[in-house]
Amino acid sequence: MNTLANDRQVAVREVGLRDGIQSLAPLATEQKLEWFRREAAAGVRAFEITSFVPARVIPQFYDAEQVVAGARAKAQSVLSALVLNDKGARRAIDAGVQSITFVVSASATHSGKNARTTPEEALSAVEALIASLAAMSERPQISGAISTAFGCTYEGKVDPGRVLAMAERLAKAGVDEIGLADTVGFAGPRQVHNLFSNLRKAVGNLPITAHFHDTRGMGMANVLAALEAGVRRFDASLGGVGGCPFAPGATGNIATEDLCFLLEEYGLQSGIDLERLLEARRSLTELLPDEPLHGALSRAGIPRPVALQ
Amino acid sequence: MNTLANDRQVAVREVGLRDGIQSLAPLATEQKLEWFRREAAAGVRAFEITSFVPARVIPQFYDAEQVVAGARAKAQSVLSALVLNDKGARRAIDAGVQSITFVVSASATHSGKNARTTPEEALSAVEALIASLAAMSERPQISGAISTAFGCTYEGKVDPGRVLAMAERLAKAGVDEIGLADTVGFAGPRQVHNLFSNLRKAVGNLPITAHFHDTRGMGMANVLAALEAGVRRFDASLGGVGGCPFAPGATGNIATEDLCFLLEEYGLQSGIDLERLLEARRSLTELLPDEPLHGALSRAGIPRPVALQ
Repeated sequence: MNTLANDRQVAVREVGLRDGIQSLAPLATEQKLEWFRREAAAGVRAFEITSFVPARVIPQFYDAEQVVAGARAKAQSVLSALVLNDKGARRAIDAGVQSITFVVSASATHSGKNARTTPEEALSAVEALIASLAAMSERPQISGAISTAFGCTYEGKVDPGRVLAMAERLAKAGVDEIGLADTVGFAGPRQVHNLFSNLRKAVGNLPITAHFHDTRGMGMANVLAALEAGVRRFDASLGGVGGCPFAPGATGNIATEDLCFLLEEYGLQSGIDLERLLEARRSLTELLPDEPLHGALSRAGIPRPVALQ
Repeated sequence: MNTLANDRQVAVREVGLRDGIQSLAPLATEQKLEWFRREAAAGVRAFEITSFVPARVIPQFYDAEQVVAGARAKAQSVLSALVLNDKGARRAIDAGVQSITFVVSASATHSGKNARTTPEEALSAVEALIASLAAMSERPQISGAISTAFGCTYEGKVDPGRVLAMAERLAKAGVDEIGLADTVGFAGPRQVHNLFSNLRKAVGNLPITAHFHDTRGMGMANVLAALEAGVRRFDASLGGVGGCPFAPGATGNIATEDLCFLLEEYGLQSGIDLERLLEARRSLTELLPDEPLHGALSRAGIPRPVALQ
């Protein structure tokens, strides 16, 4: 294992308010902001706070602009938003996010269903966006996120060479970060270690984010494999809420609280208070009373001795 | 990560019929044997099939002798039994098991509650047992299993130096295998990697077994960490059934099916057919209709593409 002597910081980004809730019945803006506020209070410093996609496609994000404005007013956190095309990116910039997650699918079939575009068109759109923003004095960070990077419910295996070629093209276009997402929960730790190790070689010092779903119970093992490959940025969803509506069989993201427990035990610092994070997680049961929550730490609690009987 | 070029075999031992069911209402002998038969048919070659402890302590094991005899008649598998003292070991030998898991607790409090003995007395009992069996032409394998090796619900942290000293003493006594058990689910991957790496140095080429519970969602990450430390033997329970009645808050073992999925993805060979293992897991819901089962693979299935809608 890495000794981590010079690299003890790790970034956790809460994506529950985007990935987690996109399949659910729309929440009120104030409910979303309450979730944000409670989790920010636990020390979470980065949120994928919404998605700028048409409300007819995903009704949940009817209030994307209001959520960004409300969150900016409530806490000092890095707010990012998911976009699938230039139109979404423009809305996100106008709304004032600090970061844009521009998703490109490695699978052509998933790309067509999720974004009504081809991988090639999506890559070109990222290039054009970054070029067009060159004149901005302070443009938002652009993260190039490759979805279905570890497999696709429609296409099955995804060629890692294709993923790496897409990542290199995104890096060349000038993205500030590369993300690889196991959108449908196909990944295992060996594949994760191999792909992130090769990605590191391909994109040099560009920050890398890992986005896992716990569909087959491999979530935490995949986090460990990514850590071993040098990844220090992770997406997760409080209570493991989540699932992509255009990826059949996909279940929730890895649970933020389980992730933070692992990272802390691994000796990394996320700045997140685990007890307060579990409090925020408890409040989710009021916000989402009909939604089954996941994750194990919340059930068992932080390890400590019990009083003798 | 290891390249695994010369070390592709891995041993999976099903402990559901011991650890998994010990807190449940007693099953009929035939039900236990049906579970065994179905899982053996999936290729599982090692079972901790019962425990030789007094039925007044754990009523579930009222039929330990009959279960061993029945399993020996049904399939060619390595049968082991858990024991806590010499009396149990003698019963296990008479019953005809090929392997005895002699448990010694690293925590004195857990040792007292679980085995009504001290760690020192338990170690002495293992030494005396092995010495007394020297004259047997074909004695069963003796595995020295150190429980609460990663923490104790009563005592909290457990000194890894104490665990290693116990392991060295067991090795010197002549055990054929050393096991470390995270009885109460306190362990994280860093601790697992450190302790197993140090154990490997301490006991040379003696086979090492890892026994994890998924209490805090770290089960699969702990497996990966143990693999990285060179461990190639794992305990698990089909459907994640389990929990120690004398370890408050402990939940089930890692799920055998999730473990096998990880091992296969890691490139190791257990000889187990994953599809047939999932079939055996489905039949558990008939055998244990009131028991919540765990594990994720059974929910999502083995990754494969779905037909396009």
